[in-house]
Amino acid sequence: MSSPGRVKVGIIGSQFQADIHAESFRLMPDEAEVVAVASPTPGNAETFARKHRIPRWFTDYRRMLEEPDIEMVTIAAPNALHARMTIDAAHAGKHVVCEKPLCMTMEEADLMIDTCRSKGVLLMYAEELFFTPKYVKAKQMADDGAFGRVYMVKQCEKHFGPHAPWFWDINRSGGGVLMDMGCHGIAFCYWFLGRPNLQAVTCHLGTYVHGDKTRGDDDAICILDFANGARGVVENSWARRGGMLDRAEIHGEGGHTVADLHMGNALPTYSEYGYGYAVEKAPTTKGWSWPVFEELWNYGFPQEMHHFARCVRGKESPQATGEDGRVVQEALFAAYASAGRAARVNFPFDARGVSKPIDLWLGHPSPA
Amino acid sequence: MSSPGRVKVGIIGSQFQADIHAESFRLMPDEAEVVAVASPTPGNAETFARKHRIPRWFTDYRRMLEEPDIEMVTIAAPNALHARMTIDAAHAGKHVVCEKPLCMTMEEADLMIDTCRSKGVLLMYAEELFFTPKYVKAKQMADDGAFGRVYMVKQCEKHFGPHAPWFWDINRSGGGVLMDMGCHGIAFCYWFLGRPNLQAVTCHLGTYVHGDKTRGDDDAICILDFANGARGVVENSWARRGGMLDRAEIHGEGGHTVADLHMGNALPTYSEYGYGYAVEKAPTTKGWSWPVFEELWNYGFPQEMHHFARCVRGKESPQATGEDGRVVQEALFAAYASAGRAARVNFPFDARGVSKPIDLWLGHPSPA
Amino acid sequence: MSSPGRVKVGIIGSQFQADIHAESFRLMPDEAEVVAVASPTPGNAETFARKHRIPRWFTDYRRMLEEPDIEMVTIAAPNALHARMTIDAAHAGKHVVCEKPLCMTMEEADLMIDTCRSKGVLLMYAEELFFTPKYVKAKQMADDGAFGRVYMVKQCEKHFGPHAPWFWDINRSGGGVLMDMGCHGIAFCYWFLGRPNLQAVTCHLGTYVHGDKTRGDDDAICILDFANGARGVVENSWARRGGMLDRAEIHGEGGHTVADLHMGNALPTYSEYGYGYAVEKAPTTKGWSWPVFEELWNYGFPQEMHHFARCVRGKESPQATGEDGRVVQEALFAAYASAGRAARVNFPFDARGVSKPIDLWLGHPSPA
Amino acid sequence: MSSPGRVKVGIIGSQFQADIHAESFRLMPDEAEVVAVASPTPGNAETFARKHRIPRWFTDYRRMLEEPDIEMVTIAAPNALHARMTIDAAHAGKHVVCEKPLCMTMEEADLMIDTCRSKGVLLMYAEELFFTPKYVKAKQMADDGAFGRVYMVKQCEKHFGPHAPWFWDINRSGGGVLMDMGCHGIAFCYWFLGRPNLQAVTCHLGTYVHGDKTRGDDDAICILDFANGARGVVENSWARRGGMLDRAEIHGEGGHTVADLHMGNALPTYSEYGYGYAVEKAPTTKGWSWPVFEELWNYGFPQEMHHFARCVRGKESPQATGEDGRVVQEALFAAYASAGRAARVNFPFDARGVSKPIDLWLGHPSPA
Repeated sequence: MSSPGRVKVGIIGSQFQADIHAESFRLMPDEAEVVAVASPTPGNAETFARKHRIPRWFTDYRRMLEEPDIEMVTIAAPNALHARMTIDAAHAGKHVVCEKPLCMTMEEADLMIDTCRSKGVLLMYAEELFFTPKYVKAKQMADDGAFGRVYMVKQCEKHFGPHAPWFWDINRSGGGVLMDMGCHGIAFCYWFLGRPNLQAVTCHLGTYVHGDKTRGDDDAICILDFANGARGVVENSWARRGGMLDRAEIHGEGGHTVADLHMGNALPTYSEYGYGYAVEKAPTTKGWSWPVFEELWNYGFPQEMHHFARCVRGKESPQATGEDGRVVQEALFAAYASAGRAARVNFPFDARGVSKPIDLWLGHPSPA
Repeated sequence: MSSPGRVKVGIIGSQFQADIHAESFRLMPDEAEVVAVASPTPGNAETFARKHRIPRWFTDYRRMLEEPDIEMVTIAAPNALHARMTIDAAHAGKHVVCEKPLCMTMEEADLMIDTCRSKGVLLMYAEELFFTPKYVKAKQMADDGAFGRVYMVKQCEKHFGPHAPWFWDINRSGGGVLMDMGCHGIAFCYWFLGRPNLQAVTCHLGTYVHGDKTRGDDDAICILDFANGARGVVENSWARRGGMLDRAEIHGEGGHTVADLHMGNALPTYSEYGYGYAVEKAPTTKGWSWPVFEELWNYGFPQEMHHFARCVRGKESPQATGEDGRVVQEALFAAYASAGRAARVNFPFDARGVSKPIDLWLGHPSPA
Repeated sequence: MSSPGRVKVGIIGSQFQADIHAESFRLMPDEAEVVAVASPTPGNAETFARKHRIPRWFTDYRRMLEEPDIEMVTIAAPNALHARMTIDAAHAGKHVVCEKPLCMTMEEADLMIDTCRSKGVLLMYAEELFFTPKYVKAKQMADDGAFGRVYMVKQCEKHFGPHAPWFWDINRSGGGVLMDMGCHGIAFCYWFLGRPNLQAVTCHLGTYVHGDKTRGDDDAICILDFANGARGVVENSWARRGGMLDRAEIHGEGGHTVADLHMGNALPTYSEYGYGYAVEKAPTTKGWSWPVFEELWNYGFPQEMHHFARCVRGKESPQATGEDGRVVQEALFAAYASAGRAARVNFPFDARGVSKPIDLWLGHPSPA
Repeated sequence: MSSPGRVKVGIIGSQFQADIHAESFRLMPDEAEVVAVASPTPGNAETFARKHRIPRWFTDYRRMLEEPDIEMVTIAAPNALHARMTIDAAHAGKHVVCEKPLCMTMEEADLMIDTCRSKGVLLMYAEELFFTPKYVKAKQMADDGAFGRVYMVKQCEKHFGPHAPWFWDINRSGGGVLMDMGCHGIAFCYWFLGRPNLQAVTCHLGTYVHGDKTRGDDDAICILDFANGARGVVENSWARRGGMLDRAEIHGEGGHTVADLHMGNALPTYSEYGYGYAVEKAPTTKGWSWPVFEELWNYGFPQEMHHFARCVRGKESPQATGEDGRVVQEALFAAYASAGRAARVNFPFDARGVSKPIDLWLGHPSPA
């Protein structure tokens, strides 16, 4: 089944996001194949490997990194582990695809980028929104001039809470919903506008609904000022019932568009009896529901992994890099600082010595 | 045609909003009738009177206030004139319906409220959103417990610029789009949540598109913290092409709803040839368009005027008062101050001695 | 409370539709007032009268017809009683508002029209779709030329079954869903197109879901050919879950529009806890739902009754007459005949001697 | 670039649909590659080949059939040529993918099927709706029991006229919009319901808008009765302005869903300036428009061709066959006969000796 031309991939992780990686490679099989998986909990790697028909499995990812044929690893582990794993992989000469957010501290971000560069491996940042077909279409329209000068870009992601309990623990996550999903929105605005410098951020956070479970923020509004005069607005929530919202708005002096990934693509459905699956985070399939089709493809995951494999082969150059992840990371620190200070924060923002973004908000006396 | 039981009304103004007043009384004729109109530009009052079949017209509103049978006047004049007219009407013993925003300064607001109270007339604040049927339904649902504890209310109004040129002149308007339309959104959040005290406001303003025409803000995001722990978000723009947007979102820990007044009620239409009228501020009726039906009724204007007339008769008590307008006015000052300081501003906010809200933003060094 | 200028109304009936009549007069009180109600079941009339604050009640409607001050009666009784009640009212010198469908047989229709004419009273046909604001807007657009020549008009009404059990009994209803709701769609197409002659009808009926409860049709498609070359399409169902559908489409060579009365006006809502009321026939308010606002007004019921009262006063001339009801009735007979014959049926269609429309379908060997 | 394992494909045709074939193979390149194209007009094949980077081109498709390495041909030529080309390809030992509708006469259909079978090649019918992701999702939900027993399936396709002038000529097309697009809807209903036998068809046709250009029908409603008691409804039009409509509805006793391929996936957009491309048949990109993304993928074309290539390799068995095309062809004859007779037509329907479907409608005296 192995084809010599395809990039051999090892996945680190065996949960929600690792499944997405494995399934994505399966959906676009012409450029890469998953040959190994590593996960520390006994049994998890093997179970995952059998489910996805992956020939090799490991409990220690460092053991997997010794496999000589593996050319690229994807990291689908908790945020606090991203830096260590990336650096180990770089030392082993493997190209790295790292999930979002890039890491915990600015020092980690710099070290990840420097190590990969010095070891001659690619550090690719798994921001799938750069590959989401509906969002890509919006960007093509904007680049075609549909909206004239774009002065505001909005992106929001909302649902009723993360898919793994470690997100509630700010020591493992580094922050709440802004950290978990705001990183998508910040990256989106930055990418959509053509990567202009960030000038300032104004952020408003609250723990409105899940205060019994977390000290982290569960609803966030983050306003970004860019050097080109445009504004980004990022809205996130862990307090939205009824399924997932993932939506972007583009506003220009000459027009606007809305790209809604879920209800905007869905089949409006009423069912007395229910059915298999509607969409991520949907509470039920009885009554009215909003099933989507080909969810991974509509997010752009297979296209993203396909692109990364082609980058390894030198057929394309990376469209989502460690440097992108670093910009997002700096913005996350600045945003939590803005919420903590109850004031706008300007860039560049020096977050050296801070161990996680949310520390700049918690313990500050601002309301909400 | 006159019926003795109906409240006799005089309108001050002859433009856009005065038309809405006259038409609103015509649509619900059982409680009130318009018997006079006053407008200073020669000919305007008469033209208006003939169009709406109003028997009396005046160029000087003070002359109209001398008519003994008039019981209530509605003020549809530029913002800077609201206080003077209200006070004159109160002295003449007439009940007052004043358009939004209430006035220019906090001193004016206080004087309007005090004068009406001491003269024994009602000061009613023409915030039609308190009567908008779709918004009223959302509030009923919230009050029924549909969404559990409501933690966030959003309201936005957007179009491509005001209906009269004086809005571009900040000396006559007192501010830009936040002043023009943000007053609706602030009032909406306050009313929807049951009039909790305002604690703080965080506001981000910019002049993104119309800098050639105005020094005022043309796109605004205003975040309100209320004493009950809920957040209001008000978004306004004069930079939206393609017609009007007027929309509210309600978010609770137990659910959410969206009330979109225009596209959300419209008839999705494609026309090669065009037709009479789609909706306020729509650029064309050719191609795809979003015509609404019974626009005034769906805004709640006739219901609002009907209610005010019943208040004059003592059949109901005012649901939108000068005090409401004063709260909104204070929030407008605080919001411009927040944008000017690039920081959250806490309540109560002392704006005495400031001649118009936008002065607290203009001339400050913050970006955008 | 009584005002001499208002038309005094008596309602015959005390169930679903009678409530709508009473509530409609209450919502637009300036032209008419309900002074009496009649319903044969002991206690019903009194309960209804107390609920709606109606001063007089009767168990025998003929007794109510003797009240000299009553000028207009509205008939909200089962179809089989319409003719008798109309004729009695005409003999008593009362104007008549008769609910849809007009009656059971063509002989009845002719007798109702002739009797009212000879007695000098108005026979008004309570087709509220002629007054539905969203549908009226669509017609205005068409009349403005928005769609060029209109070649097809569609209207559909669907829900999961009638609001009273007598509809399942074809001897009392005269037919199934086509009789119950198709009469609205037929009237709509006829009215929208400017009352051109009907040329032919092609109808396809089935009892797909409720065969255990009725011999009547529960899903119907009815295609009408008009003399002006346009086609009407009427779709009805008692087999639709999840709430009511009431929707019209207009198709011209120059464009098209869609008027959806419920989901098209609704507030898309998610609720964990539920709330008071969403819309007619909605199964629940938990989960996703589509609440409408001001349901009666959006159907046009108050406007319709207001219009009828003004007709009695001679201020307007009836826009929905017994003659309209007769056209619909003939079309219903022809439609059932078409389904029975499995063939198109041409107009004029002689249905004399047939005791109810559905007899022309039942007992015929055609499939489904 | 050539890979020995991939199926080598020759395309017959160089216009609209041939482009879709070539692009579809390019989008999913792992199973097949296009190595040749044939088109009779001088220059067309070469232009097409250069555009799509196809190495060989021919003006005579029979010459292309002599190429020994070609294993599969796709036919994207006018309907009247389908049978001849299929039979020639079968004699050359090539597997055949034939565009819709299958052919002109029932005799042709039988000969195509028999020849391919006897020559041991696959006859695959290019009905892409069997592969449309949104429609496939609807079918999965139905098969999961979401709607209980499905009693009605609707599918419609509408735009303002065909993409090539030969469709207006009934001698080349065999029929109007029912022939052009109704074949999709008939196939859809048959497939969705699990291929039950067709029992009867009731069809209503008209030439409402394009009578100056064609004798063919430009608006069609076709009602199908299936042996399992369900009803199919197929609506098609060449008279719809404002872009393409492609939409399915599924109705069961336990629920329903709607799958709208264009507006239902689109980005609601307003643009003063326009942009590259919105969707097939859209008149403009200025003003409001409904751009779709990844149009071919959302139709299922690449997935369809990928599947057909895998069938050639024996990895899958054909999901859309000549037999399916034959069922559709019989239904088209019966539908035109129903419109001609103004009556329901039962199956099986003997259409031998009739040279094209529309002959059974034209020349008949029925109205419209």
